[in-house]
Amino acid sequence: MTAERRGIDPDKLTDFTIRVLNKAGISEGDAKIAAKILVATDLRGIDSHGVGHLAMYARSILAGRTNPDPKTEITSNAPSTAVMDGDRGFGLVVGHRAMTEAMRRAEETGSGFVTVRNSSHFGAGGNYAMMALSGDMIGISMTVGGMGMVVPGSVGQGATINVLSVAAPSNQEAPFVLDMATTVVAAGKIEIAAREGKSLPEGWAVDKQGQPITDPRKFYQKGGALLPMGGTPQTGSYKGFGLAVAVDILCRILSGALPDQQYGGSHFFGALRIDGFMPVDQFKKAMDGMIQGYRALPKAPGIERIYISGEVEQEIEKKRRAEGIPLHPAIIKSLEDIAGELDVEYDLYL
Amino acid sequence: MTAERRGIDPDKLTDFTIRVLNKAGISEGDAKIAAKILVATDLRGIDSHGVGHLAMYARSILAGRTNPDPKTEITSNAPSTAVMDGDRGFGLVVGHRAMTEAMRRAEETGSGFVTVRNSSHFGAGGNYAMMALSGDMIGISMTVGGMGMVVPGSVGQGATINVLSVAAPSNQEAPFVLDMATTVVAAGKIEIAAREGKSLPEGWAVDKQGQPITDPRKFYQKGGALLPMGGTPQTGSYKGFGLAVAVDILCRILSGALPDQQYGGSHFFGALRIDGFMPVDQFKKAMDGMIQGYRALPKAPGIERIYISGEVEQEIEKKRRAEGIPLHPAIIKSLEDIAGELDVEYDLYL
Repeated sequence: MTAERRGIDPDKLTDFTIRVLNKAGISEGDAKIAAKILVATDLRGIDSHGVGHLAMYARSILAGRTNPDPKTEITSNAPSTAVMDGDRGFGLVVGHRAMTEAMRRAEETGSGFVTVRNSSHFGAGGNYAMMALSGDMIGISMTVGGMGMVVPGSVGQGATINVLSVAAPSNQEAPFVLDMATTVVAAGKIEIAAREGKSLPEGWAVDKQGQPITDPRKFYQKGGALLPMGGTPQTGSYKGFGLAVAVDILCRILSGALPDQQYGGSHFFGALRIDGFMPVDQFKKAMDGMIQGYRALPKAPGIERIYISGEVEQEIEKKRRAEGIPLHPAIIKSLEDIAGELDVEYDLYL
Repeated sequence: MTAERRGIDPDKLTDFTIRVLNKAGISEGDAKIAAKILVATDLRGIDSHGVGHLAMYARSILAGRTNPDPKTEITSNAPSTAVMDGDRGFGLVVGHRAMTEAMRRAEETGSGFVTVRNSSHFGAGGNYAMMALSGDMIGISMTVGGMGMVVPGSVGQGATINVLSVAAPSNQEAPFVLDMATTVVAAGKIEIAAREGKSLPEGWAVDKQGQPITDPRKFYQKGGALLPMGGTPQTGSYKGFGLAVAVDILCRILSGALPDQQYGGSHFFGALRIDGFMPVDQFKKAMDGMIQGYRALPKAPGIERIYISGEVEQEIEKKRRAEGIPLHPAIIKSLEDIAGELDVEYDLYL
């Protein structure tokens, strides 16, 4: 096991990811699409949703749980809307196809929406919302995750952990990219705290009886659940729950995944063409102005800079493109393991 | 001043509201639209956004700040999207026109979106999202409110208080209606606490220095600001801020209101036709199943029932339709005052 965090070359990591997925049974074209998304996620610093999942994805394909060659099917009764059946395909491939379809429909009518059933884990939702940026569109992506949120008024895990992303292009500034779970924190933060031996702040998670969990190692053994965004009813948890339900309606009900599909594997994608509303240049200029306005606000003590959603990730990407991606040793180990299993050449360092 | 809360007759209240608005200068047709929205809001128990604002609206028209006869203008470059200039009209009338236009476009293409500039306060956002229900559509409405939210990393009022609503129809159950500010609480909750002499929980508001405000009477004199949903950075305030910015992009940037319009008067409406995706009956049945599933979850100690967004409001509406609307004495007083000013007959009791 490599114990230090060495800089990983993004291009080598992309090639490696393509080879692993291809060897696992995914076509080279689809593997390229998925690899680009995974490495982009690591480049932006979202370490919980990048190549750290590669071995899991490859094994799911090898075990037959994920269909490596899905015949995704589109049904639609209106020019701007459609449902995609993912045919149990790899979420990153299915998601990319569905968002591409949403953008195609937006190109034609001004807006496009595709809801997806029978897919699988699609990585970081922001990637699909960001696909819209190059087409001068506002992008939306949502997904239903695994069970793990407590419902206000209930105890234990009662709802899925859902994700909502919105992206909008700017001119000189970083594009706006909101990518958020509708829980107080994403489940990955519990795992990171456990790995680093840190305790959780109150207000993130509760046990089966609704008591706060601060020891992350007790989260799973105590049937822990994440609190909805807002935390408690007094500070708006019914809003976080309501947002989660709204995501669920668009992903699982509108796609026909419910009542059968109890969690995961359903997504929702949307695109709004900016020039269907107004000139793109004017929009981007106003975006720059808004972002600069927030940045110029008075700073709280100890704060060096005010960040808008997407700015931190863009800064991390610049740094990681230059210095490599500092993957966690546990992730490096998982890549070495899957390389060995699939007999794929392993050389990732800058 | 009438000191007790007597049951107000919703039909009489509607007629009265029409007469007041009509006398203030709004056409009878537009006054009917606005009155229906205001009384529906009171019927659903959202007392902060109903006829309690009627006198304010009437005076704004009388003073020339609100244009009683707006020539709303639509520009559009795509079948499913449009921008409406509200011509400084009454927000409830402009909002109703814009949502109607969004639904018309959804009828044609499957989805429809209209963003609005130069409007004014439009009352409770849920009303417009709910307009979609009768057309078997999912409805979306958003608005930018007044300044009053602190931005994470900053101090004092740095952003507007924005609102986001989503409505979806069900069959036997109450329709899903999420109607939420992107702050921990709406500003109205501060006023209600002040009126009732109660202190605020920590986690709602901070003063100019970022210190918690728990005395609601000090909110305005101390330059108070509401915290974004999530409260602190540790519990996700950057998500609440991100949601607020997303709403702002759709309302003020996409409509061309920015950079000129520093707050308020911009909205965003959307409609998705359910049968553009799937059969309406199947959708509504799955909605019922989802709602019943949440209701059947184990209850926390002391909880009698688990509610989904929109259920409490539907129960209140049933009760108020039968027993009348128990308006607060301060609101009764404001209605008596405006009736006197405009020489409109006043008789509202059941």
